[in-house]
Parts: sequence; C-alpha cells; structure tokens
Amino acid sequence: MSIRVGIVGYGNLAKGAEAAIKYNADMSLDAIFTRRDPATVKINTENVPVLRMEEIEQYKDKLDVLIICGGSATDLPVQTPCLAKMFNVVDSFDTHAKIPEHFENVDRASKEGGYVSVISVGWDPGMFSLNRLYGEALLPVGQTYTFWGKGVSQGHSDAIRRIEGVKNAKQYTIPVESALERVRNGENPVLSTREKHTRECFVVAEDGADKARIEKEIKEMPNYFADYDTTVHFISEDELLRDHSGIPHGGFVIRTGETNGGKSKHVVEYSLKLDSNPEFTASVLVAYARAAVRLHKEGVMGCKTVFDIAPAYLSSLDGETLRKNLL
Amino acid sequence: MSIRVGIVGYGNLAKGAEAAIKYNADMSLDAIFTRRDPATVKINTENVPVLRMEEIEQYKDKLDVLIICGGSATDLPVQTPCLAKMFNVVDSFDTHAKIPEHFENVDRASKEGGYVSVISVGWDPGMFSLNRLYGEALLPVGQTYTFWGKGVSQGHSDAIRRIEGVKNAKQYTIPVESALERVRNGENPVLSTREKHTRECFVVAEDGADKARIEKEIKEMPNYFADYDTTVHFISEDELLRDHSGIPHGGFVIRTGETNGGKSKHVVEYSLKLDSNPEFTASVLVAYARAAVRLHKEGVMGCKTVFDIAPAYLSSLDGETLRKNLL
Repeated sequence: MSIRVGIVGYGNLAKGAEAAIKYNADMSLDAIFTRRDPATVKINTENVPVLRMEEIEQYKDKLDVLIICGGSATDLPVQTPCLAKMFNVVDSFDTHAKIPEHFENVDRASKEGGYVSVISVGWDPGMFSLNRLYGEALLPVGQTYTFWGKGVSQGHSDAIRRIEGVKNAKQYTIPVESALERVRNGENPVLSTREKHTRECFVVAEDGADKARIEKEIKEMPNYFADYDTTVHFISEDELLRDHSGIPHGGFVIRTGETNGGKSKHVVEYSLKLDSNPEFTASVLVAYARAAVRLHKEGVMGCKTVFDIAPAYLSSLDGETLRKNLL
Repeated sequence: MSIRVGIVGYGNLAKGAEAAIKYNADMSLDAIFTRRDPATVKINTENVPVLRMEEIEQYKDKLDVLIICGGSATDLPVQTPCLAKMFNVVDSFDTHAKIPEHFENVDRASKEGGYVSVISVGWDPGMFSLNRLYGEALLPVGQTYTFWGKGVSQGHSDAIRRIEGVKNAKQYTIPVESALERVRNGENPVLSTREKHTRECFVVAEDGADKARIEKEIKEMPNYFADYDTTVHFISEDELLRDHSGIPHGGFVIRTGETNGGKSKHVVEYSLKLDSNPEFTASVLVAYARAAVRLHKEGVMGCKTVFDIAPAYLSSLDGETLRKNLL
C-alpha cells in the first residue's frame, strides 16, 4: 500500500511537494489543507481534495504523514507542534537560532501522540547540514565553509521592494569565485562577509523615481546589503519577468582537513545547482516523509533531524537492492 | 571512558587508522594485531602493544571495536566473519560483486556474538555510495555518474610491474574534464569507459629493456588498459621516488535530475581531493568504528553498511550540540 501524504499549505514549497510526490511510485497525495477558501485554490493534481485546515483532525487515521509547507517566521512554530500530536510530520523550519526551541516543542508533541516528526528538512538546513556533519566527523581537524548561490534570496528581494519608488525587484546572492578557489586550495582563509558573497540586484523603479537615491538606499541597508559588494541594475518590468522569474539557488559546503599529523591534506566538497529552490527543497521533504513513516512503523517516536535518520530510510528500495546497486 | 580501539594488520590502511585515532579525543588505540612477528613491527605510537593475531581472543572484553585493515581479496572474507563473533568490527571490503555474500557472512557472525559490524566503509564504497543513495532518493528521475581520480590505482600499478622489463611503475586514473563538464551541464550523456577516464603511467624500465614493447603491452592489456586512452612515460627510478611516491586519490559523484515534470533541472555534486587515499579511508573507518560502538551500546546487533547508520552516530558531539552548531 502506498504512503498516504497530506500537504499543509499551497504556496511554492507545497506545489513543489505536490510535483515531487508524482516521482515516487510508493506515495500518493491524498489531501491538501489550506487556510484559504478551498474553492479558490486550484491545484495541479486531479482527484485530490483541497480542504480547510479545520478539517485536518478528521484525517488523523487517513494519512501516513503530513508535509507542512508553512513559513518559518510564524506558521511552523505553531503548526508543527500542533499537528505533530496527530500525525507523522515533516517541516522545513529554517530559523537557525530557534531550532533548539522548535525541536523541543515538536519532540514533546510527537511523543505525546506517539508519532515521528522530522524538522528543518531541505538543503540548508538539510543536505548542507549533513555534509557539514560528515565533513567534521571524518576530518576532525580542519575548516568547514558554506557558500550560497548563485541564487535568489527572497528576503533580500522583499527588502528592496519595501524601498520607496521600487515597483519590483529580484536579488541574487553570488559566491565569490576567488574565495571558493582559496578554500579548495586548502589555504584555510579567514573570510569576511564581503569576501565570501556579492549581491546583485535587478530593480524595476516606479516612473519618475530617483534611481540614485534607490541605489544608495539599497547599498547602505544594514544587515541586508551594507556588508557586501552590491551591484544594482535598473531594468524594465518586462525584462524582470522575462529574465528573472525563476527561483534558482544552490551553493557549496567545503570541508578541508588534515590527516597524519598534518602531512596530508584533503578537500571534501558538496555542491548544489538548483533550477528551483522550492522544488528541490520539497523533494528532500518528500524523501524524509518516507523515512518518518518507516521509522514510525518501527515504533520510533519523537522529533528527528536529518542527523538522526539513516540514509537507507530515504529510499524506496530495500537494503539488499541498495547494497547491490549503490554501495 | 574513551572508546578502546584495536587495529588488525599494519599496512598503509592500518597506519592511517593509527594516525586518525589521534585526532579523536574520545578514542584510544589499545592494541595492534599482526600476522608477522610482533618484534619486527615498529609502530608510530608509544605504549601500544603489538600482538600476534593468535592473541586476539584474549582481548575480547578489553576492546570496544576492531578496525580490520586487511585486503579484500583474501584477508577480509575470512577475518571479518571470524572476528565479528567476538568484537564490534569495521572493515573496508571493496570487492563490489561479493558485497552481498560478505554481508551475509558477517551479519550471521555478528548476530551470533551479539555485536555490530560495519562493512565496506571508506570513500568508494562508502561516502560515494552514500552520495549515490542520497542523490537517487532526492531526485528519483535522473542520472548518477561516478568519476575517479586523479589518483593512483594500486591494482593498475601492480599490473604494469608484472610486465617483463619493468622495474617499477605508478598508474594514475584521471577523469576526463570534458565529460565531467557535460554531466554538470545536465546533458545526461551516455559515456563509454574511454570517454570517462584516461590512464597515465610512469614506468621505470630495467636497463636495456625494450621500451616500445613494454608500452605496447601496457596499452593493449585487456580490462586494465585496452579500453582506455593510455599514456606511458618512461622515467628514472629517482624521478619515480621523487615525484610519484604519494598515494593521492579522489573523484566525483554527480546526480543530475529533474523536478516538476522536467521543467526544472538540478545538479548535486560530491567530490573528494585526497592527498592520501589510505589515510582518508582510515579516517572514515575510525568514524564508523565510533558508530559501531554506540549502536552496540543501544542493543543493536548484526551487519550494517554506511546506508544503515544515522549520521549523528559518526560524531563525538551530542545531538543538542550538533543541532545548535551544524544544522
């Protein structure tokens, strides 16, 4: 019997999960829950009910796992602990400083209900975290570097859009190639924020807006841009839609370390180049949803992260097949 | 109390394990077992006994785990099942076709003794296998490519040395850069053996040997060289020792895949650049030795591979610290 999946929310991440489930023959999408009026939500899959969030409790025994696709700022801190009492759940909580608190809340809820939850799933946190852990465990003396991009930062794009006179904007975070090369060469450089990434902004200004003032406001914005070398391009709305409507992202985790008292050096590098950040993140969520269901069937309870889950649980293949074909 | 480790064998891999244990404060090297006369074995650590293999049974309750550093051809198929009855063990068995059989034998032995064993640990099989599994689980529709090198192939170097008139030799396996680029560009190429790797040989000929004949024999050697573009350089023994005495290796695992019905493409790449193949392999063995001990303490029994072990078990840090610092 296939794994019955429910999706909570219907934004970009949820649409990615909806699409990803179709690539996994052992899973079926059985329901989507929304805070909007379900009649107004048009989804991309036939014969899947769109339901009001209030109805979710009735699905307690009709779904094997929920993929919760809310935002980390206000949705997930409430939704995940609440739903973890009634379902196996997976979320992509990414507010790093609040992960310990979120973990405790979700762990308590999952244990209360007897379910498995997996939080902070995706690529960072997620696959990048895994590679930081593997890198440090295998080479205990060394340096770990994480670079992001080239990719769209939604938060930085939003920050630009809030500036007076800006009609629309897209911001790319770009790793500095020379810094990457220094890391790969084993130089163990100490890199400032400015040395690691640049920021490139594509801005559509309102008619008659003061572009010089907008550019200055962007470049001097504290936290978001002031610590970076930032480039601002003013383009037309048509150009923005034509050339910058995707949500690509990616990045690099590099561990450099030594063995044999420093006589040998090693470089371990993991990188992602993603056409769609939410679709890849959702694909990771779907694989960990499978893991959550399998762990729950084994009697496991409580909150897990990618660190706690053996890789084999992500695959639909059995151990014998994995050993034969992939080991 | 620290994890008490024993090493079986004292070749390059064992020396790598000996060196790697020193980087792990929670572990101690407590004994080395050899088939040679212990009096003739000089090790790199003070106050560690070198013992005859026959004495190993007396250490049954004095060691938490054994790192078995024999060869895959004849040592490990015998040693690992034998020792798995008395100890938690880790090995680097890498004869791919025989992994299922080795797994069964070791699993039976470990369960008989109530211990945990981890086989086929290292980077390929090992970390590369993990990345193949993660890649396929996250992007079920796509292609997985493994490239090896640039690095020394011991087997190919040995094959050259067996040719008449060859005094010494070193062979490097080199991935074809243009093939790597085609894969990274998402072209999903079908690559022949010749298109993926080239082979470069540095050969020291005996005085007066027929170099043309040696070169021809190398290039036409079935399985080893005939299917590859092979370059042969004749150099002096001094040059070989000066420029080619290291054992570097590495390689690439690349997963390219799609989401959203093919509308988006993604590239996941994992690569290693290692100054010393045996030292890095040994570092992986040491991390999985820790995992074996921890699993055994939890009551787990039987044979595992890297697929079956949650990443957190490799680290000396606790879950809370890992979530705070690496997630």
